[in-house]
Amino acid sequence: MRKIYVIGIGAGDPDHLTLQAVKALNEVDVFFLLDKGTEKSDLIDLRHEILERHATGAYRLVEARDPDRDRDRAADGAAYAGAVDDWRSRRADLYARMISDELDEGTGSVGAFLVWGDPSLYDSTLAILEEILERGTVGFTYEVIPGISSVSALAAKHRIGLNRVARPVQITTGRRLAEGWPQDADDVVVMLDAHQSFRHHLADDPVIYWGAYVGTEDEILVSGRLSEVAGRIEELRAEARARKGWIMDTYLLRRD
Amino acid sequence: MRKIYVIGIGAGDPDHLTLQAVKALNEVDVFFLLDKGTEKSDLIDLRHEILERHATGAYRLVEARDPDRDRDRAADGAAYAGAVDDWRSRRADLYARMISDELDEGTGSVGAFLVWGDPSLYDSTLAILEEILERGTVGFTYEVIPGISSVSALAAKHRIGLNRVARPVQITTGRRLAEGWPQDADDVVVMLDAHQSFRHHLADDPVIYWGAYVGTEDEILVSGRLSEVAGRIEELRAEARARKGWIMDTYLLRRD
Repeated sequence: MRKIYVIGIGAGDPDHLTLQAVKALNEVDVFFLLDKGTEKSDLIDLRHEILERHATGAYRLVEARDPDRDRDRAADGAAYAGAVDDWRSRRADLYARMISDELDEGTGSVGAFLVWGDPSLYDSTLAILEEILERGTVGFTYEVIPGISSVSALAAKHRIGLNRVARPVQITTGRRLAEGWPQDADDVVVMLDAHQSFRHHLADDPVIYWGAYVGTEDEILVSGRLSEVAGRIEELRAEARARKGWIMDTYLLRRD
Repeated sequence: MRKIYVIGIGAGDPDHLTLQAVKALNEVDVFFLLDKGTEKSDLIDLRHEILERHATGAYRLVEARDPDRDRDRAADGAAYAGAVDDWRSRRADLYARMISDELDEGTGSVGAFLVWGDPSLYDSTLAILEEILERGTVGFTYEVIPGISSVSALAAKHRIGLNRVARPVQITTGRRLAEGWPQDADDVVVMLDAHQSFRHHLADDPVIYWGAYVGTEDEILVSGRLSEVAGRIEELRAEARARKGWIMDTYLLRRD
Protein backbone atom coordinates (compact mmCIF):
# COMPACT_ATOMS: atom_id res chain seq x y z
CA MET A 1 0.00 0.00 0.00
CA ARG A 2 1.11 3.55 -0.65
CA LYS A 3 2.44 5.43 2.34
CA ILE A 4 2.55 9.18 2.89
CA TYR A 5 4.70 11.02 5.42
CA VAL A 6 3.58 14.44 6.57
CA ILE A 7 6.84 15.85 7.86
CA GLY A 8 7.12 18.97 10.02
CA ILE A 9 10.32 20.71 8.92
CA GLY A 10 10.34 23.46 11.55
CA ALA A 11 9.90 27.17 11.45
CA GLY A 12 12.66 28.40 9.14
CA ASP A 13 15.99 27.16 10.49
CA PRO A 14 17.02 24.04 8.52
CA ASP A 15 18.47 22.70 11.79
CA HIS A 16 14.97 22.59 13.30
CA LEU A 17 14.68 19.27 11.47
CA THR A 18 14.44 16.35 13.89
CA LEU A 19 16.37 13.10 13.64
CA GLN A 20 13.00 11.41 13.16
CA ALA A 21 12.32 13.68 10.18
CA VAL A 22 15.75 12.93 8.68
CA LYS A 23 15.07 9.19 8.95
CA ALA A 24 11.67 9.64 7.32
CA LEU A 25 13.15 11.73 4.47
CA ASN A 26 15.37 8.79 3.62
CA GLU A 27 12.44 6.40 3.17
CA VAL A 28 10.73 8.64 0.65
CA ASP A 29 10.47 7.89 -3.09
CA VAL A 30 8.55 11.01 -4.09
CA PHE A 31 8.46 14.43 -2.47
CA PHE A 32 5.45 16.57 -3.31
CA LEU A 33 6.46 20.22 -3.26
CA LEU A 34 3.53 22.61 -3.42
CA ASP A 35 4.18 26.17 -4.46
CA LYS A 36 1.78 28.74 -3.09
CA GLY A 37 2.95 31.37 -5.60
CA THR A 38 6.20 32.99 -6.54
CA GLU A 39 6.24 35.33 -3.55
CA LYS A 40 7.20 32.59 -1.14
CA SER A 41 10.07 31.12 -3.12
CA ASP A 42 12.26 31.27 0.02
CA LEU A 43 10.04 28.58 1.52
CA ILE A 44 10.48 26.42 -1.57
CA ASP A 45 14.24 27.03 -1.42
CA LEU A 46 14.32 25.83 2.20
CA ARG A 47 12.65 22.58 1.19
CA HIS A 48 15.18 22.04 -1.60
CA GLU A 49 18.03 22.81 0.77
CA ILE A 50 16.72 20.31 3.31
CA LEU A 51 16.43 17.60 0.67
CA GLU A 52 19.88 18.27 -0.75
CA ARG A 53 21.46 18.11 2.68
CA HIS A 54 19.56 15.25 4.27
CA ALA A 55 17.81 13.02 1.71
CA THR A 56 20.73 10.87 0.67
CA GLY A 57 18.88 8.14 -1.27
CA ALA A 58 17.20 8.23 -4.68
CA TYR A 59 14.03 10.26 -4.84
CA ARG A 60 11.87 12.18 -7.27
CA LEU A 61 10.47 15.68 -6.85
CA VAL A 62 6.95 16.41 -8.00
CA GLU A 63 6.27 20.13 -7.96
CA ALA A 64 2.84 21.67 -8.37
CA ARG A 65 1.12 24.96 -7.88
CA ASP A 66 -1.26 24.99 -4.92
CA PRO A 67 -4.71 26.30 -5.96
CA ASP A 68 -5.28 29.94 -5.09
CA ARG A 69 -7.61 30.71 -2.25
CA ASP A 70 -10.50 32.99 -3.06
CA ARG A 71 -9.59 35.72 -0.60
CA ASP A 72 -12.48 37.97 -1.64
CA ARG A 73 -14.88 35.59 0.04
CA ALA A 74 -13.07 35.86 3.34
CA ALA A 75 -15.09 38.82 4.60
CA ASP A 76 -16.51 37.26 7.75
CA GLY A 77 -16.03 34.15 9.85
CA ALA A 78 -18.61 31.91 8.17
CA ALA A 79 -17.65 32.97 4.64
CA TYR A 80 -14.02 32.50 5.63
CA ALA A 81 -14.62 28.94 6.76
CA GLY A 82 -16.57 28.30 3.56
CA ALA A 83 -13.77 29.67 1.41
CA VAL A 84 -11.26 27.52 3.27
CA ASP A 85 -13.45 24.42 2.80
CA ASP A 86 -13.71 25.08 -0.93
CA TRP A 87 -10.00 25.74 -1.20
CA ARG A 88 -9.26 22.52 0.69
CA SER A 89 -11.50 20.58 -1.66
CA ARG A 90 -9.64 21.88 -4.71
CA ARG A 91 -6.36 21.04 -3.05
CA ALA A 92 -7.67 17.56 -2.24
CA ASP A 93 -8.40 17.08 -5.97
CA LEU A 94 -4.82 18.01 -6.81
CA TYR A 95 -3.19 15.98 -4.02
CA ALA A 96 -5.32 12.91 -4.82
CA ARG A 97 -4.26 13.07 -8.46
CA MET A 98 -0.60 13.42 -7.53
CA ILE A 99 -0.73 10.53 -5.06
CA SER A 100 -2.56 8.33 -7.55
CA ASP A 101 -0.32 9.21 -10.52
CA GLU A 102 3.06 9.34 -8.82
CA LEU A 103 2.97 6.63 -6.15
CA ASP A 104 2.76 3.01 -7.20
CA GLU A 105 0.30 1.03 -5.13
CA GLY A 106 1.75 -2.35 -6.08
CA THR A 107 5.26 -1.65 -4.82
CA GLY A 108 4.13 0.41 -1.84
CA SER A 109 5.77 3.67 -2.88
CA VAL A 110 6.38 6.26 -0.18
CA GLY A 111 5.48 9.91 -0.71
CA ALA A 112 5.95 12.93 1.52
CA PHE A 113 4.71 16.43 2.10
CA LEU A 114 7.10 18.79 3.86
CA VAL A 115 5.13 21.04 6.15
CA TRP A 116 6.38 24.34 7.50
CA GLY A 117 6.43 24.41 11.31
CA ASP A 118 4.38 21.67 12.93
CA PRO A 119 1.65 19.80 10.99
CA SER A 120 -0.74 20.14 13.95
CA LEU A 121 -0.91 23.96 14.05
CA TYR A 122 -2.81 25.91 11.41
CA ASP A 123 -1.82 23.63 8.55
CA SER A 124 -4.34 21.88 6.33
CA THR A 125 -2.36 18.94 4.96
CA LEU A 126 -3.85 16.43 7.42
CA ALA A 127 -7.39 17.58 6.70
CA ILE A 128 -6.75 17.25 2.97
CA LEU A 129 -5.44 13.70 3.33
CA GLU A 130 -8.47 12.77 5.45
CA GLU A 131 -10.77 14.25 2.81
CA ILE A 132 -9.08 12.16 0.10
CA LEU A 133 -9.40 8.99 2.17
CA GLU A 134 -13.08 9.70 2.81
CA ARG A 135 -13.68 9.95 -0.93
CA GLY A 136 -12.33 6.41 -1.20
CA THR A 137 -10.90 6.87 -4.69
CA VAL A 138 -7.23 6.48 -3.81
CA GLY A 139 -5.84 4.42 -0.93
CA PHE A 140 -2.83 5.07 1.30
CA THR A 141 -1.68 5.06 4.90
CA TYR A 142 -0.04 8.09 6.42
CA GLU A 143 2.16 9.04 9.34
CA VAL A 144 2.85 12.44 10.89
CA ILE A 145 6.32 13.58 11.99
CA PRO A 146 5.99 16.47 14.46
CA GLY A 147 8.04 19.61 13.88
CA ILE A 148 9.23 22.70 15.73
CA SER A 149 6.32 25.12 15.46
CA SER A 150 6.80 28.82 14.79
CA VAL A 151 5.34 29.27 18.28
CA SER A 152 8.12 27.25 19.94
CA ALA A 153 10.72 28.97 17.75
CA LEU A 154 9.40 32.41 18.73
CA ALA A 155 9.42 31.59 22.44
CA ALA A 156 12.93 30.15 22.22
CA LYS A 157 14.34 33.26 20.54
CA HIS A 158 12.70 35.52 23.14
CA ARG A 159 13.74 33.04 25.86
CA ILE A 160 10.28 33.07 27.42
CA GLY A 161 7.66 30.58 28.48
CA LEU A 162 4.40 30.70 26.55
CA ASN A 163 2.44 30.18 29.75
CA ARG A 164 2.89 31.59 33.21
CA VAL A 165 2.91 29.28 36.25
CA ALA A 166 -0.30 27.23 36.43
CA ARG A 167 -1.98 29.46 33.84
CA PRO A 168 -3.36 28.82 30.36
CA VAL A 169 -2.22 30.10 26.99
CA GLN A 170 -4.51 30.51 24.00
CA ILE A 171 -3.32 30.16 20.42
CA THR A 172 -5.56 32.06 18.04
CA THR A 173 -5.71 33.99 14.78
CA GLY A 174 -5.45 37.69 14.01
CA ARG A 175 -9.05 37.66 12.88
CA ARG A 176 -10.21 36.39 16.28
CA LEU A 177 -8.00 38.76 18.22
CA ALA A 178 -9.48 41.69 16.29
CA GLU A 179 -12.92 40.66 17.58
CA GLY A 180 -11.80 40.80 21.20
CA TRP A 181 -9.30 39.56 23.75
CA PRO A 182 -10.02 35.88 24.52
CA GLN A 183 -11.68 35.27 27.85
CA ASP A 184 -9.97 33.03 30.39
CA ALA A 185 -6.46 33.65 29.02
CA ASP A 186 -4.03 36.49 29.65
CA ASP A 187 -1.36 34.95 27.44
CA VAL A 188 -2.34 34.85 23.79
CA VAL A 189 -0.27 33.60 20.85
CA VAL A 190 -1.38 34.95 17.48
CA MET A 191 -0.67 33.27 14.16
CA LEU A 192 -1.79 34.18 10.63
CA ASP A 193 -2.31 37.84 11.38
CA ALA A 194 -2.20 39.87 8.17
CA HIS A 195 -3.67 42.96 9.82
CA GLN A 196 -1.61 43.57 12.97
CA SER A 197 -4.65 42.94 15.14
CA PHE A 198 -2.62 43.71 18.25
CA ARG A 199 -3.54 47.34 17.46
CA HIS A 200 -7.01 46.63 18.87
CA HIS A 201 -5.53 46.03 22.30
CA LEU A 202 -3.37 49.08 22.92
CA ALA A 203 -5.64 50.09 25.81
CA ASP A 204 -4.78 46.92 27.74
CA ASP A 205 -1.12 47.59 26.97
CA PRO A 206 0.12 44.00 27.20
CA VAL A 207 3.74 43.07 26.64
CA ILE A 208 4.28 41.80 23.09
CA TYR A 209 6.93 39.32 21.98
CA TRP A 210 6.97 39.55 18.21
CA GLY A 211 9.05 37.78 15.59
CA ALA A 212 9.18 37.54 11.80
CA TYR A 213 11.11 34.99 9.70
CA VAL A 214 12.17 33.43 13.02
CA GLY A 215 15.16 31.12 12.67
CA THR A 216 16.22 32.49 9.27
CA GLU A 217 18.86 35.07 8.38
CA ASP A 218 16.05 37.62 7.94
CA GLU A 219 14.82 37.13 11.51
CA ILE A 220 13.44 40.23 13.25
CA LEU A 221 12.56 40.20 16.95
CA VAL A 222 10.89 42.96 18.95
CA SER A 223 9.54 42.87 22.49
CA GLY A 224 8.22 45.41 24.96
CA ARG A 225 5.10 47.17 26.13
CA LEU A 226 2.71 47.26 23.18
CA SER A 227 2.21 51.02 23.52
CA GLU A 228 5.96 51.50 23.16
CA VAL A 229 6.76 49.09 20.33
CA ALA A 230 3.58 48.71 18.23
CA GLY A 231 4.58 51.48 15.85
CA ARG A 232 8.05 50.07 15.36
CA ILE A 233 6.67 46.59 14.69
CA GLU A 234 4.30 47.98 12.06
CA GLU A 235 7.13 49.84 10.34
CA LEU A 236 9.53 46.90 10.42
CA ARG A 237 6.80 44.57 9.21
CA ALA A 238 5.79 46.80 6.29
CA GLU A 239 9.40 47.36 5.28
CA ALA A 240 10.31 43.67 5.41
CA ARG A 241 7.18 42.61 3.57
CA ALA A 242 7.84 45.12 0.80
CA ARG A 243 11.48 44.06 0.51
CA LYS A 244 10.95 40.29 0.55
CA GLY A 245 7.48 40.08 -1.01
CA TRP A 246 6.09 37.99 1.85
CA ILE A 247 6.20 37.85 5.61
CA MET A 248 5.54 35.21 8.22
CA ASP A 249 5.25 36.56 11.73
CA THR A 250 3.94 35.32 15.07
CA TYR A 251 3.57 36.96 18.42
CA LEU A 252 2.65 36.47 22.06
CA LEU A 253 0.65 39.07 23.97
CA ARG A 254 1.03 38.89 27.76
CA ARG A 255 -1.47 40.88 29.80
CA ASP A 256 -0.83 41.81 33.43
CA MET B 1 31.61 34.45 30.06
CA ARG B 2 29.80 31.29 31.01
CA LYS B 3 27.12 30.11 28.60
CA ILE B 4 24.12 27.93 29.30
CA TYR B 5 22.05 26.03 26.76
CA VAL B 6 18.48 25.13 27.64
CA ILE B 7 17.84 22.31 25.21
CA GLY B 8 14.41 20.89 24.43
CA ILE B 9 14.90 17.15 23.92
CA GLY B 10 11.37 16.30 22.81
CA ALA B 11 8.58 14.32 24.33
CA GLY B 12 10.02 10.84 24.82
CA ASP B 13 11.30 9.62 21.46
CA PRO B 14 15.09 10.13 21.33
CA ASP B 15 14.65 10.93 17.61
CA HIS B 16 12.62 14.02 18.52
CA LEU B 17 16.01 15.67 19.00
CA THR B 18 16.62 18.38 16.40
CA LEU B 19 19.81 18.88 14.43
CA GLN B 20 20.15 22.20 16.24
CA ALA B 21 19.99 20.38 19.57
CA VAL B 22 22.63 17.86 18.43
CA LYS B 23 24.96 20.72 17.45
CA ALA B 24 24.39 22.41 20.81
CA LEU B 25 25.07 19.15 22.72
CA ASN B 26 28.48 19.07 21.11
CA GLU B 27 29.46 22.50 22.42
CA VAL B 28 28.72 21.59 26.01
CA ASP B 29 31.36 21.06 28.70
CA VAL B 30 29.02 20.24 31.57
CA PHE B 31 25.53 18.74 31.49
CA PHE B 32 23.41 19.37 34.57
CA LEU B 33 21.09 16.42 35.10
CA LEU B 34 18.43 17.03 37.69
CA ASP B 35 16.68 14.08 39.21
CA LYS B 36 13.13 14.67 40.42
CA GLY B 37 13.12 11.43 42.44
CA THR B 38 13.63 7.79 41.72
CA GLU B 39 10.19 7.27 40.22
CA LYS B 40 11.10 9.00 36.99
CA SER B 41 14.33 7.19 36.30
CA ASP B 42 13.15 6.50 32.74
CA LEU B 43 13.46 10.23 32.10
CA ILE B 44 17.00 10.25 33.43
CA ASP B 45 17.79 7.19 31.30
CA LEU B 46 16.57 9.01 28.19
CA ARG B 47 18.94 11.89 28.89
CA HIS B 48 21.85 9.48 29.31
CA GLU B 49 20.90 7.70 26.11
CA ILE B 50 20.77 10.99 24.20
CA LEU B 51 24.20 12.01 25.48
CA GLU B 52 25.75 8.63 24.72
CA ARG B 53 24.40 8.66 21.18
CA HIS B 54 24.88 12.30 20.22
CA ALA B 55 27.39 14.12 22.44
CA THR B 56 30.61 12.97 20.81
CA GLY B 57 33.07 15.37 22.49
CA ALA B 58 34.43 15.45 26.03
CA TYR B 59 31.91 16.48 28.66
CA ARG B 60 31.19 16.12 32.35
CA LEU B 61 27.93 15.13 33.98
CA VAL B 62 26.82 16.89 37.13
CA GLU B 63 23.86 15.13 38.67
CA ALA B 64 21.77 16.56 41.47
CA ARG B 65 18.48 15.96 43.18
CA ASP B 66 15.88 18.60 42.38
CA PRO B 67 14.30 20.00 45.58
CA ASP B 68 10.94 18.45 46.40
CA ARG B 69 7.89 20.56 45.89
CA ASP B 70 5.68 21.02 48.89
CA ARG B 71 2.60 19.46 47.37
CA ASP B 72 0.54 19.83 50.55
CA ARG B 73 0.41 23.56 49.99
CA ALA B 74 -1.06 23.14 46.54
CA ALA B 75 -4.66 23.17 47.73
CA ASP B 76 -5.90 26.13 45.74
CA GLY B 77 -4.71 28.35 42.90
CA ALA B 78 -3.03 31.08 44.96
CA ALA B 79 -1.38 28.64 47.35
CA TYR B 80 -0.32 26.59 44.36
CA ALA B 81 1.39 29.57 42.73
CA GLY B 82 3.04 30.39 46.08
CA ALA B 83 4.29 26.83 46.48
CA VAL B 84 5.66 26.91 42.94
CA ASP B 85 7.43 30.23 43.59
CA ASP B 86 9.03 28.87 46.74
CA TRP B 87 10.04 25.68 44.97
CA ARG B 88 11.52 27.70 42.12
CA SER B 89 13.52 29.78 44.57
CA ARG B 90 15.04 26.69 46.18
CA ARG B 91 15.83 25.32 42.73
CA ALA B 92 17.43 28.65 41.80
CA ASP B 93 19.72 28.30 44.86
CA LEU B 94 20.81 24.86 43.67
CA TYR B 95 21.21 25.80 39.99
CA ALA B 96 23.17 28.96 40.85
CA ARG B 97 25.57 26.96 43.00
CA MET B 98 26.06 24.35 40.28
CA ILE B 99 26.66 26.99 37.60
CA SER B 100 29.07 28.88 39.83
CA ASP B 101 30.97 25.77 41.00
CA GLU B 102 31.08 23.76 37.80
CA LEU B 103 31.44 26.32 35.00
CA ASP B 104 34.62 28.33 34.74
CA GLU B 105 33.97 31.98 34.03
CA GLY B 106 37.49 32.71 32.79
CA THR B 107 37.49 30.09 30.02
CA GLY B 108 33.84 30.62 29.13
CA SER B 109 32.65 27.12 29.97
CA VAL B 110 29.40 25.93 28.43
CA GLY B 111 26.74 24.21 30.50
CA ALA B 112 23.40 22.73 29.52
CA PHE B 113 20.07 21.69 30.94
CA LEU B 114 18.17 19.08 28.96
CA VAL B 115 14.47 19.87 29.14
CA TRP B 116 11.72 17.37 28.45
CA GLY B 117 9.44 18.49 25.60
CA ASP B 118 9.78 22.17 24.73
CA PRO B 119 11.32 24.68 27.19
CA SER B 120 8.48 27.16 26.52
CA LEU B 121 5.60 24.98 27.75
CA TYR B 122 5.05 24.36 31.45
CA ASP B 123 8.73 24.12 32.27
CA SER B 124 10.42 26.31 34.85
CA THR B 125 14.07 26.21 33.76
CA LEU B 126 13.92 29.60 32.02
CA ALA B 127 12.25 31.26 35.00
CA ILE B 128 14.91 29.81 37.29
CA LEU B 129 17.75 31.14 35.12
CA GLU B 130 16.11 34.59 35.03
CA GLU B 131 15.78 34.52 38.82
CA ILE B 132 19.49 33.71 39.18
CA LEU B 133 20.46 36.53 36.81
CA GLU B 134 18.26 38.97 38.71
CA ARG B 135 20.08 38.08 41.93
CA GLY B 136 23.28 39.17 40.21
CA THR B 137 25.53 36.77 42.14
CA VAL B 138 26.58 34.59 39.19
CA GLY B 139 26.87 35.74 35.58
CA PHE B 140 26.16 33.85 32.36
CA THR B 141 24.43 34.15 29.00
CA TYR B 142 21.92 31.58 27.87
CA GLU B 143 20.29 30.32 24.70
CA VAL B 144 17.15 28.24 24.23
CA ILE B 145 16.89 25.38 21.73
CA PRO B 146 13.23 24.64 21.00
CA GLY B 147 12.00 21.06 21.21
CA ILE B 148 9.09 18.90 20.12
CA SER B 149 6.46 19.45 22.80
CA SER B 150 4.33 16.64 24.19
CA VAL B 151 1.44 18.53 22.60
CA SER B 152 2.91 18.27 19.09
CA ALA B 153 3.86 14.64 19.73
CA LEU B 154 0.31 13.80 20.86
CA ALA B 155 -1.26 15.47 17.83
CA ALA B 156 1.16 13.72 15.46
CA LYS B 157 0.37 10.28 16.86
CA HIS B 158 -3.37 10.92 16.62
CA ARG B 159 -2.81 12.53 13.20
CA ILE B 160 -4.95 15.52 14.09
CA GLY B 161 -4.68 19.28 14.05
CA LEU B 162 -4.79 20.97 17.45
CA ASN B 163 -6.97 23.73 16.05
CA ARG B 164 -9.88 23.64 13.65
CA VAL B 165 -9.98 25.98 10.64
CA ALA B 166 -9.71 29.62 11.74
CA ARG B 167 -10.42 28.66 15.37
CA PRO B 168 -8.40 28.97 18.56
CA VAL B 169 -6.97 26.31 20.82
CA GLN B 170 -6.29 26.76 24.52
CA ILE B 171 -3.51 24.97 26.38
CA THR B 172 -4.30 24.69 30.05
CA THR B 173 -3.84 22.61 33.19
CA GLY B 174 -5.99 19.93 34.77
CA ARG B 175 -6.58 22.21 37.74
CA ARG B 176 -8.04 24.90 35.48
CA LEU B 177 -10.15 22.46 33.48
CA ALA B 178 -11.67 21.15 36.71
CA GLU B 179 -12.89 24.69 37.44
CA GLY B 180 -14.73 24.94 34.14
CA TRP B 181 -14.43 24.68 30.37
CA PRO B 182 -12.47 27.68 29.06
CA GLN B 183 -14.56 30.32 27.37
CA ASP B 184 -13.80 31.24 23.76
CA ALA B 185 -12.21 27.89 22.90
CA ASP B 186 -13.80 24.59 21.92
CA ASP B 187 -10.43 22.88 21.51
CA VAL B 188 -8.57 22.48 24.77
CA VAL B 189 -5.21 20.81 25.35
CA VAL B 190 -4.60 19.73 28.94
CA MET B 191 -1.18 19.17 30.47
CA LEU B 192 -0.17 18.32 34.04
CA ASP B 193 -3.45 16.70 34.96
CA ALA B 194 -3.01 14.38 37.91
CA HIS B 195 -6.73 14.10 38.52
CA GLN B 196 -8.33 13.24 35.16
CA SER B 197 -10.20 16.51 35.13
CA PHE B 198 -11.88 15.54 31.87
CA ARG B 199 -14.39 13.77 34.14
CA HIS B 200 -15.91 17.16 34.91
CA HIS B 201 -16.97 17.54 31.28
CA LEU B 202 -18.80 14.30 30.53
CA ALA B 203 -22.03 16.26 30.02
CA ASP B 204 -20.55 18.18 27.07
CA ASP B 205 -19.29 14.87 25.72
CA PRO B 206 -16.37 16.22 23.68
CA VAL B 207 -14.09 13.98 21.68
CA ILE B 208 -10.89 13.23 23.60
CA TYR B 209 -7.49 12.45 22.09
CA TRP B 210 -5.44 11.08 24.95
CA GLY B 211 -1.88 9.81 25.12
CA ALA B 212 0.58 8.67 27.77
CA TYR B 213 4.35 8.15 27.39
CA VAL B 214 3.91 9.36 23.81
CA GLY B 215 6.84 8.49 21.57
CA THR B 216 8.21 5.81 23.92
CA GLU B 217 7.80 2.04 23.85
CA ASP B 218 5.20 2.39 26.62
CA GLU B 219 3.02 4.71 24.54
CA ILE B 220 -0.74 4.39 25.05
CA LEU B 221 -3.21 6.22 22.80
CA VAL B 222 -6.97 6.38 23.17
CA SER B 223 -9.46 8.56 21.29
CA GLY B 224 -13.22 8.76 21.03
CA ARG B 225 -16.30 10.33 22.56
CA LEU B 226 -15.48 11.07 26.17
CA SER B 227 -18.59 9.25 27.41
CA GLU B 228 -17.41 6.11 25.63
CA VAL B 229 -13.71 6.12 26.50
CA ALA B 230 -13.33 8.00 29.81
CA GLY B 231 -13.59 4.82 31.87
CA ARG B 232 -11.05 2.99 29.74
CA ILE B 233 -8.60 5.91 29.97
CA GLU B 234 -8.91 5.96 33.75
CA GLU B 235 -8.26 2.22 33.95
CA LEU B 236 -5.31 2.29 31.56
CA ARG B 237 -3.86 5.30 33.33
CA ALA B 238 -4.13 3.75 36.80
CA GLU B 239 -2.68 0.46 35.62
CA ALA B 240 0.26 2.09 33.80
CA ARG B 241 1.01 4.43 36.69
CA ALA B 242 1.05 1.52 39.15
CA ARG B 243 3.27 -0.56 36.88
CA LYS B 244 5.81 2.13 35.97
CA GLY B 245 5.66 4.28 39.11
CA TRP B 246 5.01 7.48 37.13
CA ILE B 247 2.94 8.68 34.23
CA MET B 248 3.09 11.59 31.85
CA ASP B 249 -0.05 12.10 29.83
CA THR B 250 -1.57 14.86 27.74
CA TYR B 251 -4.89 15.20 25.97
CA LEU B 252 -6.97 17.32 23.64
CA LEU B 253 -10.70 17.80 24.22
CA ARG B 254 -12.65 18.85 21.12
CA ARG B 255 -16.19 20.10 21.68
CA ASP B 256 -18.78 20.21 18.88
